[in-house]
Amino acid sequence: MLILVLAEAALEPIPREIWDHPIIRSFSRRRGKHPRLIVLDRSHHHFAMKDLPNSEKRGRPDIVHFCLLEALGSPLNKEGLLRTYVHTIDDNAISIDPETRLPRNFNRFIGLIEDLFKHGHVPPKGKSLLSLETRSLPRLIEALKPTYTVIFERSGEPKTFEDVALKLAMENRPAVLVGGFPHGEFSEETIRLADEVVCVDSEVLDAWVIVSRIIYEYERAIGLPKKRLEQLINRGS
Amino acid sequence: MLILVLAEAALEPIPREIWDHPIIRSFSRRRGKHPRLIVLDRSHHHFAMKDLPNSEKRGRPDIVHFCLLEALGSPLNKEGLLRTYVHTIDDNAISIDPETRLPRNFNRFIGLIEDLFKHGHVPPKGKSLLSLETRSLPRLIEALKPTYTVIFERSGEPKTFEDVALKLAMENRPAVLVGGFPHGEFSEETIRLADEVVCVDSEVLDAWVIVSRIIYEYERAIGLPKKRLEQLINRGS
Repeated sequence: MLILVLAEAALEPIPREIWDHPIIRSFSRRRGKHPRLIVLDRSHHHFAMKDLPNSEKRGRPDIVHFCLLEALGSPLNKEGLLRTYVHTIDDNAISIDPETRLPRNFNRFIGLIEDLFKHGHVPPKGKSLLSLETRSLPRLIEALKPTYTVIFERSGEPKTFEDVALKLAMENRPAVLVGGFPHGEFSEETIRLADEVVCVDSEVLDAWVIVSRIIYEYERAIGLPKKRLEQLINRGS
Repeated sequence: MLILVLAEAALEPIPREIWDHPIIRSFSRRRGKHPRLIVLDRSHHHFAMKDLPNSEKRGRPDIVHFCLLEALGSPLNKEGLLRTYVHTIDDNAISIDPETRLPRNFNRFIGLIEDLFKHGHVPPKGKSLLSLETRSLPRLIEALKPTYTVIFERSGEPKTFEDVALKLAMENRPAVLVGGFPHGEFSEETIRLADEVVCVDSEVLDAWVIVSRIIYEYERAIGLPKKRLEQLINRGS
């Protein structure tokens, strides 16, 4: 089983410091929602958020959306062998049930996340598919108890996805941490959680490219692609 | 070099048959655009489009968006070794310059595509990054002159991504066709274009999962991950 954590992810409600900004006030009025229940998004709130601390790492919910679609749609997840979490830059942890069918449409995804901010879990009734609690990344990792943790980061040791995955596949509860933000680096506190920090390409890769590749290489390392094709062939015969 | 074609993709302007539908009329008024310049999207136009022929294959621009982000963000593309095309269900062919930095935000992507429908290329001035022309899939393939064409399709021969990529890497101008639609199958006309039709998993995979994996396996087959890491190491030393 592989644990995937999108860490320091650029997904948060509009922070209190900018609730009074004219752009936010008018956006809030138009949406008919209080700013604390609206997802911060650079494509709408750019000028309001530019003086926030760490501004360049924030307000990119699309990154979380793409990464989750890649993760939840993977054969590894369909086999029940992937656990997916989002740790947000404002220290919330979101657990995602592997059977969640996430909205493909971005605006509906945002609606879902805003419901999550409001209720702490979605759907509001019945079994929760997404649930949110206030939790720092160290506390989340402590609770997940990985036996080995790899962080993908520009400054890490050069290593192919294949070599990373071969190591992960030897572990009982391996975890990978992928940055859910567009620019900048992991905080030092995050880096301290890693058993290994790796760099997998000569250029910065989008988070969803890293997510799809490490999941796929982990599948390869545990022999999943061949196993699933054999199931298909046996079903047909 | 690998040629990627998203084929029969669910990306088109609102078709003439439903311009008069009340949902479309009100959507068009709200957007201040003629329906022929608006992207058909099931998440807005579901009830208006449900009687269209092939309705279940249409109105999913998000699929094209995700697939293009995966393709254009890949190391293969950054090396200039990937050519990406979209063939749409209404027989337009879109060529995408490898250096295009596509909007990450879905609504901005839709705006870009609507500009493309209007002008035939974007940006309107200077070097075109996306350009569109009326062209059936057979005519597009004829122009691209692939030496070997693989189609991913549920009914194909079971084969791993790895085996598919090893074959592609032996070719001079290999092409892969991935369905850019949510449900259903390729038309028979499309299937006839293939040298090989393959099925890579026991379940239907999202188009973006197929795109990211075949690109990655092709990179592996030509030794790109190691080569790029060596560049990184040499730069550092």
